[in-house]
Amino acid sequence: MAGISIADKMANFMESSSWIRKMFEEGARLKKEHGAEKVCDFSLGNPDLPPPEAFQTALERIASDRTPGVHSYMPNAGLPWVRESIAEQVARDHGVKPDADDIVMTCGAAGGLNIIFKAILNPGEEVIVPRPFFVEYHFYTDNHGGKLVPVRCNHDFSLDIDAIKDAIDERTKAVLINSPNNPSGVIYQDDSIKELVQVLQEAGQKLGRTIFLISDEPYRKLVFSGNTVPPLMKHYANTIVTTSFSKDLSIPGERIGYVAVHPEITDRGPLLGALNLANRILGFVNAPALMQRVVAEVAS
Amino acid sequence: MAGISIADKMANFMESSSWIRKMFEEGARLKKEHGAEKVCDFSLGNPDLPPPEAFQTALERIASDRTPGVHSYMPNAGLPWVRESIAEQVARDHGVKPDADDIVMTCGAAGGLNIIFKAILNPGEEVIVPRPFFVEYHFYTDNHGGKLVPVRCNHDFSLDIDAIKDAIDERTKAVLINSPNNPSGVIYQDDSIKELVQVLQEAGQKLGRTIFLISDEPYRKLVFSGNTVPPLMKHYANTIVTTSFSKDLSIPGERIGYVAVHPEITDRGPLLGALNLANRILGFVNAPALMQRVVAEVAS
Repeated sequence: MAGISIADKMANFMESSSWIRKMFEEGARLKKEHGAEKVCDFSLGNPDLPPPEAFQTALERIASDRTPGVHSYMPNAGLPWVRESIAEQVARDHGVKPDADDIVMTCGAAGGLNIIFKAILNPGEEVIVPRPFFVEYHFYTDNHGGKLVPVRCNHDFSLDIDAIKDAIDERTKAVLINSPNNPSGVIYQDDSIKELVQVLQEAGQKLGRTIFLISDEPYRKLVFSGNTVPPLMKHYANTIVTTSFSKDLSIPGERIGYVAVHPEITDRGPLLGALNLANRILGFVNAPALMQRVVAEVAS
Repeated sequence: MAGISIADKMANFMESSSWIRKMFEEGARLKKEHGAEKVCDFSLGNPDLPPPEAFQTALERIASDRTPGVHSYMPNAGLPWVRESIAEQVARDHGVKPDADDIVMTCGAAGGLNIIFKAILNPGEEVIVPRPFFVEYHFYTDNHGGKLVPVRCNHDFSLDIDAIKDAIDERTKAVLINSPNNPSGVIYQDDSIKELVQVLQEAGQKLGRTIFLISDEPYRKLVFSGNTVPPLMKHYANTIVTTSFSKDLSIPGERIGYVAVHPEITDRGPLLGALNLANRILGFVNAPALMQRVVAEVAS
C-alpha cells in the first residue's frame, strides 16, 4: 500500500468487497439479457411498493409549512415532540414505557447502529451476532474499534443459544440480533429471546458488567401470514433497539430511523449522552428535520 | 471508568466538553434575565433568516412528486443528475471542471468531513489546522484514528505559512482550512493560498506522497461588502472541498451538503471509491434524497 494516498484499511475494504460490485454488475448484465422484469434484485433492500398515501399527504402538508425554524438545528436527538410520538410507538411494540428522552432520531438504522457502537465500544470489544447476518455489520463495528464475532445458528435459522453462550467472554460488549432476519427471514420467538436474556444476565453477573442486547429491526412491520415480531424490551432492561422507516414506508433514500433505549437500562444517563454525542460528532448532527416530522405524523 | 457500560473515550469526551453545555446554560440564563432579543447567540450556526422563496417553491413541488422511486436507495454518492448540477456549481466557484463523479452528496459538511477523514487517515496520521477553528474538528479526526494538530495564525487571523510549514512532518496527511473562518470570520486571500500550496507541494515532494488540502467552506456564500472567497482548486490538484447548504439556504436541520474532489487529484479512483464506501459504512448510506433534489434545483 506504500504511496497510496487513501487509508490502507479503506483500500483493503474496497479490494475485499469487490464481490459485491461483481454481483451488482452480474445483475445488470442479466437484466439486459433477459429483461429487468425477469430478474429479481436481492442486492439491496429497496422496496418495490410506492410509499403509502398517508406518507404522501403528510409530506405535502409539512413541506408547505413556513413556520420559522422548521428547517433549523435542533437537539442532536431530534425534535422533542417527534421523539414523544416515537416513544409511544415503541411502547406499543415493546411492552415498556420509554419517554421521549429514551429516543434518538437517526439517519436510518445504519446510522443508528453506528452511533450505538460509537457510544459503547472500547477498542477490541466484541459484538456477537448469529449467522447469517447483514454483511455491513462488520464495517459498523470496525468503524468504532470493535470486532464482530459471528456464531452459528440452528438448522431452522433460529438462535443457537449454546453457541452464543460459548462465544461470550471478557471482551463481549453486546449481542446483536436482527429479527425478522436479513437474509434468512426468520423471526426469533419469545421462548428463544427469554433463553438468550437468561444467558446475558448470567454472563453479565459473572463478568460484573452489562452485556447489551442490540436489536436491529427495520423489517418488524413487514411480516405476513398473521406473524408478529415478539417484543424484546419487556424481557431485558439492557436492550437497545434501532430501526428505520425505510422498508415499511418505502423511503430508504430519505434516511430516517431511530434508536430507542430501555427506560431502565444500566447507566441510562451516560448512555443517552453518549448516543447524542455520537450522533453529533459522527456528522449526522441530527436526523433530517423534515422527515422526522413526517414519520412522527404517519406513525401516530 | 471501571464498571461503566459506555465507551471510556465517550465518557471522557462528555466530561471534557461540559464547558460547551455550561455555555449553553449561561446563554439560556442570560436570555431569561435580559430578554432573548438582547442576547446574541453565537453557540451554533443556526441562521436567523427564513429559507429563500426559491427553496420553498422547489421543496413544495418536489414533495408532491409521486414518480416511482423518488424516495428509494440510490448510488451512495447521490443522484447522478444532482451531482451533475453540483459539479457545475463547483466549476463556477473553483475555476476547474469536475464531473458528476467528483461529487459525493453528504449529510452536511460535518458528514463530509467525517467521510473525508475516514477515507484518507491511517491510524496516528495528522491533520494540521490553523487556529482558531471549529472545535468539532478534534472529534472528526479522532473518530477515524487521526489527530488534529492546531497551529498559530497571524495577528490578523490570516494564515501563518511558516507555522504550517514547521508543523508538517512524516505523519501529516492533510491541511484543513475553513474560509470564511468560523469563528474569526477571516477570508484567506489568493496570495496566502498560493504560498500554502507551494509549501504543500514541496513537502509532498520531499515526503514522496500527497498532502491533501481540505477546505471546509459552508460560509462561502455568506460574505459581505463586496468580498468574495477566492477559488482554491485552480491552485492545487490535491484539494478536497466540503460544504453544506445549511447556512446559505437556512436549512441546517435538513443535513445536506457535498464533498467535491479536484478532477486531477492523486489516486482519484481509489479516493472516490473510499469516499463512497465511507458514506455507506458510516451509516449515512446516501444524503437525504428529497433534499438532494431540492438543493440541485435551487443551486442551478
